[in-house]
Amino acid sequence: MSQPRIVETTFRVRYAETDAMGIVYHANYLVWFEVGRGEYFRAMGQDYGEWEQHGYLLPVSEAYACYHAPARYAELVTVRTWLDKLRSRSATLGYEVRSAATQQCLVTGWTKHICVDREGRVRRLPENMLGFGEVQ
Amino acid sequence: MSQPRIVETTFRVRYAETDAMGIVYHANYLVWFEVGRGEYFRAMGQDYGEWEQHGYLLPVSEAYACYHAPARYAELVTVRTWLDKLRSRSATLGYEVRSAATQQCLVTGWTKHICVDREGRVRRLPENMLGFGEVQ
Amino acid sequence: MSQPRIVETTFRVRYAETDAMGIVYHANYLVWFEVGRGEYFRAMGQDYGEWEQHGYLLPVSEAYACYHAPARYAELVTVRTWLDKLRSRSATLGYEVRSAATQQCLVTGWTKHICVDREGRVRRLPENMLGFGEVQ
Amino acid sequence: MSQPRIVETTFRVRYAETDAMGIVYHANYLVWFEVGRGEYFRAMGQDYGEWEQHGYLLPVSEAYACYHAPARYAELVTVRTWLDKLRSRSATLGYEVRSAATQQCLVTGWTKHICVDREGRVRRLPENMLGFGEVQ
Repeated sequence: MSQPRIVETTFRVRYAETDAMGIVYHANYLVWFEVGRGEYFRAMGQDYGEWEQHGYLLPVSEAYACYHAPARYAELVTVRTWLDKLRSRSATLGYEVRSAATQQCLVTGWTKHICVDREGRVRRLPENMLGFGEVQ
Repeated sequence: MSQPRIVETTFRVRYAETDAMGIVYHANYLVWFEVGRGEYFRAMGQDYGEWEQHGYLLPVSEAYACYHAPARYAELVTVRTWLDKLRSRSATLGYEVRSAATQQCLVTGWTKHICVDREGRVRRLPENMLGFGEVQ
Repeated sequence: MSQPRIVETTFRVRYAETDAMGIVYHANYLVWFEVGRGEYFRAMGQDYGEWEQHGYLLPVSEAYACYHAPARYAELVTVRTWLDKLRSRSATLGYEVRSAATQQCLVTGWTKHICVDREGRVRRLPENMLGFGEVQ
Repeated sequence: MSQPRIVETTFRVRYAETDAMGIVYHANYLVWFEVGRGEYFRAMGQDYGEWEQHGYLLPVSEAYACYHAPARYAELVTVRTWLDKLRSRSATLGYEVRSAATQQCLVTGWTKHICVDREGRVRRLPENMLGFGEVQ
């Protein structure tokens, strides 16, 4: 594939996700990245939960977020997720959160994941995931 | 014991726990009840995490909270926890959240727990816990 | 209306919502109740966020949940929400969380809300909401 | 001061903070950074909540975390917080989360904050905060 596949998922901001500033609390965007990641895997025909059952865990090893504008209660937001970098034992996913109504970019970021087994030993990514893109 | 033992734990409200009303989001008091419960067990010389490792899980089967007054960011709150009812396979704990500064009662509630094993089958509570009070 | 209107909303369990027992952490069902409540208001043509802007706040005064069976990561769950009791200054909503795949009932519960203004004084519910059902 | 002041705060991991991998969910470390930040301000004789009341808001504009080893339920963790960079309208704080028992470093990271007023306009940091270190 010459172009990265971008998977979109849209949902509504929960009151629980807001804080006393009246906006979404910053840590919750990492949760939204996780929602986007799950949908990305599902769109690629995979199921992260099943991987876990087969002993492939993908804990986050690094995370970064840049906050451009705040999301607010009841707003529809869209998380766009793509595979940024693929290695045999790790992968980096990129994210963009937009307001679904205005398409304004709210937050961008990425997470890096290392594949480990139940005992925490680094292992090769599931073969299915290695097929998501070009391994570097 | 003729009197229920009450265990207190005090901590500060996190910004993450507030919502757009400027007060602590109601579901977070259930988390604070859990903090109080852990401290209650510890004060009784027990460790819930160890129980889990030995296959005694205590999932919540019912929960109730009554909200009297709101807690706010950075406030010190005290959770008071006691054993309300003890049966061979279940236990009910009671909670009271107070403002540490004013002693005003903010939230009261209770949680009921049923003891299960890793496969979800109901089992007797750990013997140590059955010694917490009179089994009804 | 002789029959209570039930509003359904379906979404996927987030990894963030699970706990070390491998199931959804019990306090998160109160968050799901809130998601159901927002959808209920929306289905009735109302917007809770707008009410807040007009000075009608509906903080939770009591909450109860009964846990029948656990939800797990990536599962689709449906929250069914209805108006249980309507008074001039308070309302009680009922909830049922089901597995969308099997229709198994996972959690039931209710929340009671008292209408207050920005200063915390009790006030009449918004007229639009009083039209949701018969005021008792 | 030639050396950055490091402020430590220690607390216990909550069950609510764990996930189905049996470890602390990665987004919660950003919440812990916020706890460390509040304690840092308090140790400097300041109160972030009061700043907000005076119209100085410090939303997060960027956040980064690197995950070295996982924290687990009931473990005592220490968050070490320091001021990394101070400008007239923004500040960057650094964080390190350690196991209180073993002193093992679990997570490191930083957050950048821009000072805004209630309307979201960028403004100078509170004078008290500008006294925390050398403004660059």
